[in-house]
Amino acid sequence: MIEPIAEQKMEANKKAVREFYELALNTKDFVAASRYLGPRYVQHNPLVGDGKEGFLAFLAKLKAEYPDNRNEIKRIFADGNYVIIHVHSVRIPGTRGRAIFDLFKLEDGKIVEHWDAIQEIPEKSANSNGMF
Amino acid sequence: MIEPIAEQKMEANKKAVREFYELALNTKDFVAASRYLGPRYVQHNPLVGDGKEGFLAFLAKLKAEYPDNRNEIKRIFADGNYVIIHVHSVRIPGTRGRAIFDLFKLEDGKIVEHWDAIQEIPEKSANSNGMF
Repeated sequence: MIEPIAEQKMEANKKAVREFYELALNTKDFVAASRYLGPRYVQHNPLVGDGKEGFLAFLAKLKAEYPDNRNEIKRIFADGNYVIIHVHSVRIPGTRGRAIFDLFKLEDGKIVEHWDAIQEIPEKSANSNGMF
Repeated sequence: MIEPIAEQKMEANKKAVREFYELALNTKDFVAASRYLGPRYVQHNPLVGDGKEGFLAFLAKLKAEYPDNRNEIKRIFADGNYVIIHVHSVRIPGTRGRAIFDLFKLEDGKIVEHWDAIQEIPEKSANSNGMF
């Protein structure tokens, strides 16, 4: 069975990821966001360099190229040391944007690893349910 | 706290998604896979039609166009009624393939809703960690 302490930890991990994500992708404040990162930050997004330095460079570029970028967390899940978010990302207001899943691994409440998959939302769909 | 019965349910949901996914994407047996679907199957993948019929048409097309398609589950997570899988999909053997996150909602142990995000694995990466 899942111990109550494990459940509390998963809720705390969700909260940490929410706060980190808001500071990073929306506020675009690397200093504030980086407080949520652990001693290492292993990056699996192929467009972002490894570690905190790679993440800093990514955020600087995002801020310069897409200052109005907004990422909205639609759903959040936790299992063990992992948190998964389902995100609607709009780089330029008024555009359809992209559907994203981000997966974070946490250790001692800090984010240490990140994976994702990003898909442009197409103009037309084979169903009327939307991507969220 | 998470009740033991809730944890058992999440493990059963993971097992159902694993079996469904193998039968659908690898064996490509719609009849066998569809036994894991609930009374409805709400589809959010914009390239697939809604419901069981849309899924049947998708599998038939996959089987015809990519008979050697293989989807490998790299990681699986569960939270409440949801199961998330992180997948490496290779449609044509020897190609880099795609990174996928699939999100499934289950009711009474059956799959009733599906979302995903699919990204081609690029030739070059800004880090050496791979997408998994």
